[in-house]
Amino acid sequence: MAVSHMDALHKDAKIIVERVIEANMPQAAVKAALKNHEFSGNIYLAAIGKAAWTMAQSAQAELGGRIKRGIVITKYGHASGEIPGMEIIEAGHPLSDENTIAGTAKAVEMAQGLGAGDELLFLISGGGSALFEQPLPGLSLADIVEINSQLLACGADIVEINMIRKRLSSVKAGKFAQICAPAKVFTVVLSDVLGDRLDSIASGPAAPDMATTEDVLAVVKKYNLIVSDKMREYFSKETPKSLDNVKTVITGSVRTLAESAAAVASELGYAPFVLCSEMNCEAREAGRLVSSIAKQIGSGGHSFKRPCAVILGGETVVNVRGKGKGGRNQELVLAAADGIAGLENLLVFSVGSDGTDGPTDAAGGIVDGSTAARLREKGLKIQDIIDASDSYAGLEAAGGLIKTGPTGTNVNDVSVILCR
Amino acid sequence: MAVSHMDALHKDAKIIVERVIEANMPQAAVKAALKNHEFSGNIYLAAIGKAAWTMAQSAQAELGGRIKRGIVITKYGHASGEIPGMEIIEAGHPLSDENTIAGTAKAVEMAQGLGAGDELLFLISGGGSALFEQPLPGLSLADIVEINSQLLACGADIVEINMIRKRLSSVKAGKFAQICAPAKVFTVVLSDVLGDRLDSIASGPAAPDMATTEDVLAVVKKYNLIVSDKMREYFSKETPKSLDNVKTVITGSVRTLAESAAAVASELGYAPFVLCSEMNCEAREAGRLVSSIAKQIGSGGHSFKRPCAVILGGETVVNVRGKGKGGRNQELVLAAADGIAGLENLLVFSVGSDGTDGPTDAAGGIVDGSTAARLREKGLKIQDIIDASDSYAGLEAAGGLIKTGPTGTNVNDVSVILCR
Repeated sequence: MAVSHMDALHKDAKIIVERVIEANMPQAAVKAALKNHEFSGNIYLAAIGKAAWTMAQSAQAELGGRIKRGIVITKYGHASGEIPGMEIIEAGHPLSDENTIAGTAKAVEMAQGLGAGDELLFLISGGGSALFEQPLPGLSLADIVEINSQLLACGADIVEINMIRKRLSSVKAGKFAQICAPAKVFTVVLSDVLGDRLDSIASGPAAPDMATTEDVLAVVKKYNLIVSDKMREYFSKETPKSLDNVKTVITGSVRTLAESAAAVASELGYAPFVLCSEMNCEAREAGRLVSSIAKQIGSGGHSFKRPCAVILGGETVVNVRGKGKGGRNQELVLAAADGIAGLENLLVFSVGSDGTDGPTDAAGGIVDGSTAARLREKGLKIQDIIDASDSYAGLEAAGGLIKTGPTGTNVNDVSVILCR
Repeated sequence: MAVSHMDALHKDAKIIVERVIEANMPQAAVKAALKNHEFSGNIYLAAIGKAAWTMAQSAQAELGGRIKRGIVITKYGHASGEIPGMEIIEAGHPLSDENTIAGTAKAVEMAQGLGAGDELLFLISGGGSALFEQPLPGLSLADIVEINSQLLACGADIVEINMIRKRLSSVKAGKFAQICAPAKVFTVVLSDVLGDRLDSIASGPAAPDMATTEDVLAVVKKYNLIVSDKMREYFSKETPKSLDNVKTVITGSVRTLAESAAAVASELGYAPFVLCSEMNCEAREAGRLVSSIAKQIGSGGHSFKRPCAVILGGETVVNVRGKGKGGRNQELVLAAADGIAGLENLLVFSVGSDGTDGPTDAAGGIVDGSTAARLREKGLKIQDIIDASDSYAGLEAAGGLIKTGPTGTNVNDVSVILCR
């Protein structure tokens, strides 16, 4: 009885993982975005990011010959052949290189040639910030690298670093959209940034910039940054605070990831409950809190209607302590396994939508009430495995790895408590 | 508009804190337990733990002259005067001392004299494990301290340590209830142990022991413990696995704490939602996850009906890194303040039911969407405050400390997201 219950839960978990990733593939995201958009005039295409190739190919499949010209800039090894009418450039990530500069220059040149009757389909995915860069006149990539080092050495946070970097670029902070004007820009975003702040995703080449000149100068002063006269001039030049030629849709993000998990769970008969979509704490602590929620559900806590699926979207962090191998999703579920030990009516799984969790070949992991006992039988203690940052080996021993292979999308992670 | 909204939320938070603590005071817990119990024959009383005095006084107020004799063992400074018909002993906590032994001996002597027509009202609260101890014949407190040191040095966990210690005691692990037989024992528990495992609370003097002789000998072998022949003899003697003279009710625990928060919130018009009652992860990570749940609610996530109160019970842990002053509830809410920055329709508060959070005079803290900005105006960054383990100063600067004074109860902590 208990066994068949668990079998059914594991089967449903597998279905949820498969269908959620499918629904959040770049192809699906581009298709959904294009379905509700009416292009006016000639269509040009720019695609940047790690999913640029797949997104561009997908747009090509939808729009076919209507695309006049396309520039695709993606990470080395992320293009899979020719796409008719498109120029494909592979470049450095996470560090920009000469190919970044060359590819971006081509996109800028294309943008400069657009007229009022044209429309640019702009496809953005994770990694776009490094893959799309053109320093302002009088600056080089080396200048930007240098000020970045200063900021890192001062302990500036990511918001401050981006604020400065966006001022020194001719494409970030809405400036690429300005170059496209008077043409319209239709931006389709596959987001890998929690909270989907448009001015953060790929440093917002087609999004109004939130930071003011005052904010930027305050950072320069705060850290006593050593800057050239040229830089100081650019810091004082305001970035676009509104863009009337841009329309943006986010068709893939951790939010849609969590929502599609809810939709699939609901179809399978579980009452879905999306708890959050910006979980960003430590993986093992998230796992412990998830297990305490799972226990509340498992013990019949009356706030939850059962069967149910409690869903947490986000991207947790692993502070590596040991010499083992693992990933944030694997560590999260393993940390949850102790708390749910002995419960017969539920399981916890967590996967990265990109299919590669940490430096492993697993997408994530799955645990249930028998996981802790199975490890104990093999002489393994969960706390020891976590202290050794060895979640991959732990889950392998417990039969709890989830493997999908690299999926081609990246909209962060989803963790699910599935309970009958 | 936004301001009056926040005022109302803060007012409601204050009401919830006050009424939840009131509902979980030892007096209320004892009163609730006695209301549904019919005593047969003569009533004797034993009370152990930090709330022993208050619980005993409360029983005296309810049962008056029906109590034949009472022994009350509490921590130094925790008795507030005479209680008619009761002998009050103050002893060491967290380390047992000679008063522990003397007080426990009196309780044992009373228990030995009970007959079939008698009933013992046994009041247990947190700290009972240290305050109620009698080594088995041939052993001393020093022997127990010595084996404890061996276990700590080997890296044994708390489950293993308790397993060994319970075997060497003549009152723990259900053995006190055996001494009381043939008299009945009615145990009323105010629990400070997450999960309310009866064999863990005060080391279970009136609860069947879960650990077998086999388990105990495995621990001895695992750590190569150096033990005397006398100890080895006791390790091999099975502890009670069932007790037919005992009835137990848990009338106060983190579970009732969370449920009373739900009840008060509901009366105030918020849909209550108890997420968990065994939260035990790191305070700051819990705060970050709580903020991400809060954001989901605040941004209109459809899984939550508003106005609502999302409730998490438990006891988080602070890993002190800096030289500041704070407590787990204060650190939790401060860590949540960044994530909810700018939200106008919610707040987060967290309090320890004992009224003393960490080594501070605050019970906990409260933050809302304006907390981060208020600190920034004063030149303070939340992450820096947390890294300095200085949550008290941070909340003081933001006007976010909750002070109740020591309450006299201890049923862990409750954290609440309150949202309109």
